Formats: sequence, C-alpha cells, structure tokens
Amino acid sequence: MKGFVFHGPGRSAWSDVPDPEVKEPTDAVVRVDTTTICGTDLHILKGDLPEVQPGTVLGHEAVGEIVEVGDDVRTVRPGDRVLVSCISACGRCRYCRESAYGQCRGGGGWILGRLIDGTQAEYVRVPFADLSVYALPGAVGSKDAVLLADIFPTAYEVGVRKGHVRPSDTVAVVGAGPIGLAAIATARLFGPERIIAVDLAASRLEAARRLGADAVAEAGEVPEQLVADLTDGLGADVVIEAVGEPESFELCTRMVRPGGRVANIGVHGEPAVLHLEDLWSKNVTITTGLVDTHSTPTLLSMTAAGRLPTAQLVTHTFLPDQMEEAYDVFARAAETGALKVVLGEPTHDEVAVRAA
Amino acid sequence: MKGFVFHGPGRSAWSDVPDPEVKEPTDAVVRVDTTTICGTDLHILKGDLPEVQPGTVLGHEAVGEIVEVGDDVRTVRPGDRVLVSCISACGRCRYCRESAYGQCRGGGGWILGRLIDGTQAEYVRVPFADLSVYALPGAVGSKDAVLLADIFPTAYEVGVRKGHVRPSDTVAVVGAGPIGLAAIATARLFGPERIIAVDLAASRLEAARRLGADAVAEAGEVPEQLVADLTDGLGADVVIEAVGEPESFELCTRMVRPGGRVANIGVHGEPAVLHLEDLWSKNVTITTGLVDTHSTPTLLSMTAAGRLPTAQLVTHTFLPDQMEEAYDVFARAAETGALKVVLGEPTHDEVAVRAA
Repeated sequence: MKGFVFHGPGRSAWSDVPDPEVKEPTDAVVRVDTTTICGTDLHILKGDLPEVQPGTVLGHEAVGEIVEVGDDVRTVRPGDRVLVSCISACGRCRYCRESAYGQCRGGGGWILGRLIDGTQAEYVRVPFADLSVYALPGAVGSKDAVLLADIFPTAYEVGVRKGHVRPSDTVAVVGAGPIGLAAIATARLFGPERIIAVDLAASRLEAARRLGADAVAEAGEVPEQLVADLTDGLGADVVIEAVGEPESFELCTRMVRPGGRVANIGVHGEPAVLHLEDLWSKNVTITTGLVDTHSTPTLLSMTAAGRLPTAQLVTHTFLPDQMEEAYDVFARAAETGALKVVLGEPTHDEVAVRAA
Repeated sequence: MKGFVFHGPGRSAWSDVPDPEVKEPTDAVVRVDTTTICGTDLHILKGDLPEVQPGTVLGHEAVGEIVEVGDDVRTVRPGDRVLVSCISACGRCRYCRESAYGQCRGGGGWILGRLIDGTQAEYVRVPFADLSVYALPGAVGSKDAVLLADIFPTAYEVGVRKGHVRPSDTVAVVGAGPIGLAAIATARLFGPERIIAVDLAASRLEAARRLGADAVAEAGEVPEQLVADLTDGLGADVVIEAVGEPESFELCTRMVRPGGRVANIGVHGEPAVLHLEDLWSKNVTITTGLVDTHSTPTLLSMTAAGRLPTAQLVTHTFLPDQMEEAYDVFARAAETGALKVVLGEPTHDEVAVRAA
C-alpha cells in the first residue's frame, strides 16, 4: 500500500510501505477513507520529536472502515465505519483507569504516527481497538468526524476543561489555528462573558469571529492591553495557549488575572521563561496536557446533533494520493490560509462542484 | 514606641516611630506581645520587593492584645488576646467574597509590613480588624499561635491544598525551612504514602524527619533520582516548592509524575525556566499563590487540640528589643540552625531556664 513516510528531519514522501496486519488479538486494521494533517506532524518533520524513527508512517487522525479485527476485539467488527482516535488506550493501567488515556503506560497513548505507523496511509493497524476506535453514527460525515480524532477533544479537554471555563468568564485564546478555533467553539458552550482571540493572521481572526470570538487582537496590537481594557485592568479568567512558542506562552502569563488559569495546549520544542517574580503571589494555575480523548463520545453526540462547527475548520480538501501537495499547502498556511486540510475521496457535492 | 524600620536595601534598625492609632472605623490597634521574622522580610531587606517604601515598619505576624478599636469593629474589643494575620481582608470585594483574601482589591491583602507599618513593633494598627485578627482560645500559647499568622496557613493552603495532597500520594517538599516543615506537617494530615524532603542542610532534614518526612535527599544526592527510585520511575504526585529560587522550582518540575502537581510557595525574585518541551504533554498542573488565610480558624482549632507541631519550629527566642540580633541569627540560618525565631516576653518556664 501507500503511506506518507517520515525519512528523518526535512525528508518525507508518499511511498510504498507494507500492508499492516493484525499482530495482537486486540488490534484492528482500518481502511482509511479520510485523514488529515496536524500541526504536530510539521513538528515531527522539523525533527522536534526525536522519538519518531525514520521509516514511520505519519498521521494520527482518520475515519475509515474496519477490515480485520483480532480475536479479543469485542465492540467493532469488519464493515463498521469508525473514527480512529489519536490516542490508543490499553484500558488496564493506572492512567487508563483514571481516564488519563493520553498517559497510558500499557503500550497506548499517542502512538499512531509517532511510535508506530499512523493513519496517513491506505490502511492502518490500530492497537487496543475496543478503546481506540469509535463506531460512527450515520449522521456524522467523514469530514466532520475526522476533526474529532484530535483537534476537538484536544481543544476541549486540554484547553477548555483544564482551563475550567465558567459562565461569565473572560477567555483569551492565543493562536487561532485549528486548535485555537476549536477551543473558541467549545469554550462558547460554557457561557463565557467574552472570548478574545489573538493571532497575527487576519484570515484566522475572521474565522475566530465566525466561530464565536467577541473581540480579536490583531498583529500590531498589544493583546494584554486589549484584555486589560476589557476587564477593568484585571486580566482574563482563562487564557488558552494554542501556538506552542515560548513568546506566546509568556504572553498568556501576562494576560491572566490574579486567581486565573493558563491552559497550555501548544506543542513546544523549547523552554519558556516563567516570570515567577511576578506570578508567585498571583494564585495562578498553569496546566499542560496531552489529550486523553475521554470526551470523544460526548463530542460525537454533539456533532451528530449539529452542535459543533467541525467541518467549518476545513479549508482544503485533497485526494488521498495528493498527500505531499496537502502537506505543502498546510505548511504554508500563512500564505494559503489553510486551517484544516482533509484528504479523502470527494463527496458527491464536491464532485459536482469540481465538474462545474 | 519602638519598631523595626526598613530604611532601604541593606539598611534597617530598631528605631523610634510614632505610636499607631485608629484611623478608620474598621481599624484595631494591637499591643504586640509576640512577633516573628519571615523569610519574606529578608527578601524585603535585600530590595527584592520594590513596593516596600523606606520608613516602613516590617513584620506581618503577631500575637497581642487589642487596646483600641474603631466604631465599626464588632467581633473583638479592648482586652481581647488575638492573632494578627499576615492577610487583612476588606470582606467586600470580588476576591474576598470568594475567600481569596490574599488577593483583596478593597485595600487589604498582604499590607502589614509591606504597604503599611507592620507587627515588628510595640504596637500595630490592623485595618479591617473583624476579618484580620482572630480571638485566641486560652489553650493556645503565643509561641504556637504566632506560627498561624503566616507559616502554617501558607504551607497548608498554598502548598498542601493547592497541591491537592491525597491519601497514598508521594509528596516531595523542596526546601525544609519553616514553610517546608509546616508543609510536611500538614501534608501528613491527608494520609500520603510517603513524604520526601529535599534540603542542603542536615539540621533541616533532621527536623523534616521529626515532623513526618519518610525520606530525605541530602546535599550531594540527586533528588529526582531518589524520587524516581521510590516511585517505580514515575515521579512524585505532588511537589511543593518552598525555597523561592529558579533552580529549586526547576527541580520540582523534574520530580513530578505525569498528571502530577507542582505547588509553588516560594517567594521568587527572578524568573525560572519552564521546560515546556518536556512538560507540554505531561498533564502537569503548576500553581502559585499568596496565602488567603481562609484556613486560619481550622488551624487554630487543630492547634488548640494539640494536632499541629507549631512551636516545634521555634529554635530561638528573643526579647522584643533584641530585634536586630534576632534578624542576624535568622539571616545566618545556615550557620545558626535557625528555623523560626520568635520575639516576645519569656514564659515562666523560660525565665526559670535562664535563671538556672
């Protein structure tokens, strides 16, 4: 089959790779219909995640059809249409028992496209299938569902839930890429007073407004001043970091009010400065986290009910074998305006548009 | 009267100052019987807290007798023996209504010995007396009570409670000075599996063992290795920072397990490095905080019942007018072995010991 292979920092290609097969009785093999590219994949290509070995098929998000299951798999069977989650979970270790699946010590966690071959391929082997894939209701389209593999649970769990967004809060979201936008959309569910989006790209700030931001800080503005002006000088109740750069994290710690919360979602490649000489007395809570995906069933229900703007984040659609082109468009997001790029067979509507 | 006056970085003296008087109807004036010196006072003397103006009487901890109250004071009256808390609270602002008295926006917070004259004096004016002093049960001695003005509520609220110490947890406490020792003693109340104390001074580690530490990391040991060895390589559930140096904070972030909590108590004068390239995916929670003293009534009850080893932290006792000598002994703690130094009239027992 074909898969998108990381060959070491700066080198990758849509290549021939062996077909995956069931190795453990808890495995499933999924034929990938729809996949997408994550900002984390770009970090891997840059060499920021040294644990990713050359030869690994990338990707940790997919929708597809089960084609084979091991003997111990109970909840899905061949022919089922499923969401492949970015997190696999053994279900038995200390962390899984606390729903902290992202920290699984039994061989799961974020392994797809990192420690084992991933979803940017024609087929993918998914370990611990019972806890790592989700049967999809017919009402949920693939382009919506694939955003629940990582983006929406990550933004919701690591940003909004760890940040404890509450009714009447002022929430600032730094970074209006796909994760930041999903954080805006899901923060909205908790009835905040206002959401302030911070980004350098005007197109992303437009998207932020569409998805529920009440105010935006554009390039050239001083975001902490905007937040101060809107909060009587106090600062934001919750600040969500969705960039992954030291500067953006440090900005978050300047925007938070005394007693407030900074929830870091960003994937960081280097340390940040923590200004404890200012923060020590401010009752600030800072959280980090990898997604656990314990919210995936909830988010699936909301998506089926049309309550999440999932597919609104998709700006570009490609055929599966256009992976290298898709990476190029996604990596040049500042020029292309790309938010989420999705790879899959086109829907009937899209075929009609292309034909026109 | 006499008071210990900060005259600018490096300059201070036991000096003549005006007697305090009731200025606001919510004030009380307290005759100080017992006071003590806090590590924060040393930070002020070094110039680390630029908001402290030359001419300020230092000190934010005392036990004494009410000598005068303003017309609006309802809960204490002249003759009452009281604890003067390090935190004053207006009781009316947004923060006070959430029991976050340390962040009071109505003129309170940590003001004594910082923004107004403090307790290292013969008399002190205490604003918002109803919420800022506590009538003392007769069973509680002054040397015990004065440790409830700051040390014990700070260790308990900012370290143990914000760190969410739970039964069976492994708790590491970095820094076994008075705050760290009080954190060890109050963490014990929550039934942890083990408490590991880290300090460079052997005498402090001995005190840590006496107060409930199960293991200690001494100078020359690698504390994160000790913690790893005791936890199957996982790390501590809760790490409490009780030093206030960048290195000790950074050590805490290396000792915490995935999903664990770092509770900073230390007063910091400079920034630390936050290794987000390692921590971003580890579900770590970091908290900072100034004490709110919402736990003071609870701690007073426990002290009256003999459940807290308060006076065990007192290594040196001085007469009130020996303030400069007491500061010298406290500042040279590494040589003198000082933990908490208390200033006050000696008890009958102490007089007997001196006479012998």
